[in-house]
Amino acid sequence: MRIALGVEYDGKPYCGWQSQPGGRTVQDTLQSALSHIADAPVTVNAAGRTDTGVHALEQVVHFETDANRPLSAWVRGVNAMLPPSVVVRWAHPVPDEFHARFSAQGRSYRYLLINKPVRSAIHAGKAGWFHLPLDIALMREAAGYLLGEHDFSAFRAAECQAKSPVKCMNKIDIYLNGDVLVFDLEANAFLHHMVRNIVGCLVYVGKGKYPPAWMADLLASRTRHLAAPTFSPDGLYLRRIQYDPTWCLPQQEMM
Amino acid sequence: MRIALGVEYDGKPYCGWQSQPGGRTVQDTLQSALSHIADAPVTVNAAGRTDTGVHALEQVVHFETDANRPLSAWVRGVNAMLPPSVVVRWAHPVPDEFHARFSAQGRSYRYLLINKPVRSAIHAGKAGWFHLPLDIALMREAAGYLLGEHDFSAFRAAECQAKSPVKCMNKIDIYLNGDVLVFDLEANAFLHHMVRNIVGCLVYVGKGKYPPAWMADLLASRTRHLAAPTFSPDGLYLRRIQYDPTWCLPQQEMM
Repeated sequence: MRIALGVEYDGKPYCGWQSQPGGRTVQDTLQSALSHIADAPVTVNAAGRTDTGVHALEQVVHFETDANRPLSAWVRGVNAMLPPSVVVRWAHPVPDEFHARFSAQGRSYRYLLINKPVRSAIHAGKAGWFHLPLDIALMREAAGYLLGEHDFSAFRAAECQAKSPVKCMNKIDIYLNGDVLVFDLEANAFLHHMVRNIVGCLVYVGKGKYPPAWMADLLASRTRHLAAPTFSPDGLYLRRIQYDPTWCLPQQEMM
Repeated sequence: MRIALGVEYDGKPYCGWQSQPGGRTVQDTLQSALSHIADAPVTVNAAGRTDTGVHALEQVVHFETDANRPLSAWVRGVNAMLPPSVVVRWAHPVPDEFHARFSAQGRSYRYLLINKPVRSAIHAGKAGWFHLPLDIALMREAAGYLLGEHDFSAFRAAECQAKSPVKCMNKIDIYLNGDVLVFDLEANAFLHHMVRNIVGCLVYVGKGKYPPAWMADLLASRTRHLAAPTFSPDGLYLRRIQYDPTWCLPQQEMM
């Protein structure tokens, strides 16, 4: 049978999501716990890979197993085998047509940025930091140029393996939550480093280095080296994977 | 001269606040960085000791030094010497009459509790967890019995060194912030483990084990072994130390 899982993790202690020989990755950690419960090797397929230090509020994976276990074993049983930095939020049986990655219709990411003169100790590893004041209105105006379908090559890492740089950005919300500046981005899919590169460019606009319209020129240029450096992974969260509601996945509305 | 500092820290990697021979404590870590900037040994006095794993949003300390440095050296200079888990938020010159501990008029602590069936990976080490639903109204009613001046022996650790178990509780606010249940407590001073013991008892009431009036009986009993076990340090934050405004400390209003 095929089972889907919602998985939350703190990416800080891991060399990213994807399994590596000898590497300490989230996928290896999760597979080890699942294999223990299944009493047989388990390989998972994830909706999206995350880089070293990047977190997930709800990554979605699926796996095949012959092990006949109550659904709670794939949550509470697996969680008892996982370190504090990884947890299965839910498990749900899915038909063979479901694929965590290929059935996904969209992804949303969140970036948390501490915007104060002094860095935060409590949020270390869990939020980016920028010490100069940022103008949210200017950043919102710049972000507006990215909405819709575009060639996002200007925000694409050299090592990106996506077939096409054309993606559709559905939403970029920027707001303050207490001390923390929140960037919520939704697209059908993202290129490698795309969120961190966009956040870096929005910070350039927010601090007044360039006007908002620079973002439109940058997007049109499709030239990575004109953009800002890739921002820190610390504040990046894979927040939610969108699926057709007919799969009935028990995804929770994210805060 | 005497200088006061506001210090934020993640207590998870440390054996508590107080300096220990060979122990990795927050005080040792801070003193090492300050001594480097002062180019001479520096000893700090803190407003309150925190236990292993307990965090601080704004601990206050003072120290004496002959080193003549610009105030920014005690913030940015020291922060460059500190690990990500400790940061100096502000520095302020104070007269010799100021003492971080003895001048304090009150303390506030915050406890963060994840109240969901599944633990959180993102908040691991930064929030407590309780898996059964908690009734906030019942907990608020129980907390009301603790307001005012009382003998808090029922919530006092055996190793507590306070001269008197009589303290004055000024406020206990309990509210939801997104997924997280927040307990904000303010008193003139706290006994050892007092907040964690109170939170444990409030959880007993919140899950329906005892009615709210049990808290009044427990307080009156002054008997520790009738109370709930000490709750996890993970969610506990020393939030703010109250001083007379005439000291003009640049304390920030805490979120």
